[in-house]
Amino acid sequence: MPQFTLYMSNTGTNGWKVAMVLEELDLQYHAIFLDLSKGDQRNSEHTKFNPNGRIPTLIDHENNDFTIWESNAIVTYLVEKYDLDAKVSLKTFEGKITQLQWLMFQASGQGPYFGQAVWFIRSHPEKIPSAVVRYQKEVLRVFGVLEIVLSKQEWLVEGKYTVADLSFIPWTIAAVDGIIMRGYEGFDFAKDFPSVSKWHQAMLNRPAVKKVDDLRKSMMPVDA
Amino acid sequence: MPQFTLYMSNTGTNGWKVAMVLEELDLQYHAIFLDLSKGDQRNSEHTKFNPNGRIPTLIDHENNDFTIWESNAIVTYLVEKYDLDAKVSLKTFEGKITQLQWLMFQASGQGPYFGQAVWFIRSHPEKIPSAVVRYQKEVLRVFGVLEIVLSKQEWLVEGKYTVADLSFIPWTIAAVDGIIMRGYEGFDFAKDFPSVSKWHQAMLNRPAVKKVDDLRKSMMPVDA
Repeated sequence: MPQFTLYMSNTGTNGWKVAMVLEELDLQYHAIFLDLSKGDQRNSEHTKFNPNGRIPTLIDHENNDFTIWESNAIVTYLVEKYDLDAKVSLKTFEGKITQLQWLMFQASGQGPYFGQAVWFIRSHPEKIPSAVVRYQKEVLRVFGVLEIVLSKQEWLVEGKYTVADLSFIPWTIAAVDGIIMRGYEGFDFAKDFPSVSKWHQAMLNRPAVKKVDDLRKSMMPVDA
Repeated sequence: MPQFTLYMSNTGTNGWKVAMVLEELDLQYHAIFLDLSKGDQRNSEHTKFNPNGRIPTLIDHENNDFTIWESNAIVTYLVEKYDLDAKVSLKTFEGKITQLQWLMFQASGQGPYFGQAVWFIRSHPEKIPSAVVRYQKEVLRVFGVLEIVLSKQEWLVEGKYTVADLSFIPWTIAAVDGIIMRGYEGFDFAKDFPSVSKWHQAMLNRPAVKKVDDLRKSMMPVDA
């Protein structure tokens, strides 16, 4: 039996992030894919572990079935407990706090806003172009903040690839390759945000990230 | 000179949270109030410390002017470094991770969604009732998750008041006393969410929280 059970979904962005960190750390896990379109994440089989009823949720069977949800809390748990060689994380106190700062920015500034763009493009009961544009502009704002920082340094924290960088991958994919910016005239990721684009591509080339992203692509609904 | 400089705003929700934690820990700070309506937070005097151009930002003058932004990263910095007696935080590894889980839920699940309700009520260029209702319903969803947990335990983590609980105060005030739910027919916080309401009121009664919230009320624009 693998050490971890990971509740995720083929269509839910944040589960892929946890899978990427597990692969980076060579940790063994069993992934349970919930069907978000059927509301599986809100069934008691999942909410008994996670009252929020959202994916991902992780259970560590080698730590008394310790259960944790919120993807960036999961990621922090994994690197604090299992990244002893500091492969994808920092170990100084100030380094860890700055890493957390960027994880908070990803969790509060990237995920929800990029997600609202998807909502108003695909799911809202009426078409509201001004709402779609509001969130597309927030995508540009977030990439703009990252561009300012990454034009001066290769990675977000202390010159080293960490989970702070990795945490941005899934929603950046959704913005660049998915539906979010498809209808935004003139958007050119590589040209408008050259440092962010280079940083994102460098991460996609990492074997652990590529392995998970290839799986994601193979499981994506054709219309996403 | 006080130990800390805190960039915040009378109208920006998340700065008050940091002030509450500083008061809980008896730490001395100088608050600089930025005028968000004039875009002060995006001026270089602030963005040289915080490229995201949002409040709050904290500088610790007794730690080489260590600079940190994202309110829940600031809060984690403060308790990890200065809450040595565990007055408002946990010190076990699993306790700290679960505390972080709730801070992530507050940062990603409460703040952005409650904030979108404010946006569509007050600032969006056109009136879109279906968008307002979407985010008011998300307020109910978040309170519902908290109610499930708090109906079985007094505090979110390990039976002890921590910054995980405190982090929810400012946006809960905004939802309950501010404009967010004002137009939502039948909403009755104390009746619909009795455990959340009791928890919220217990925190407002703490001297450190009350001191900061009284200051906030005295600085609030009359129409907010």
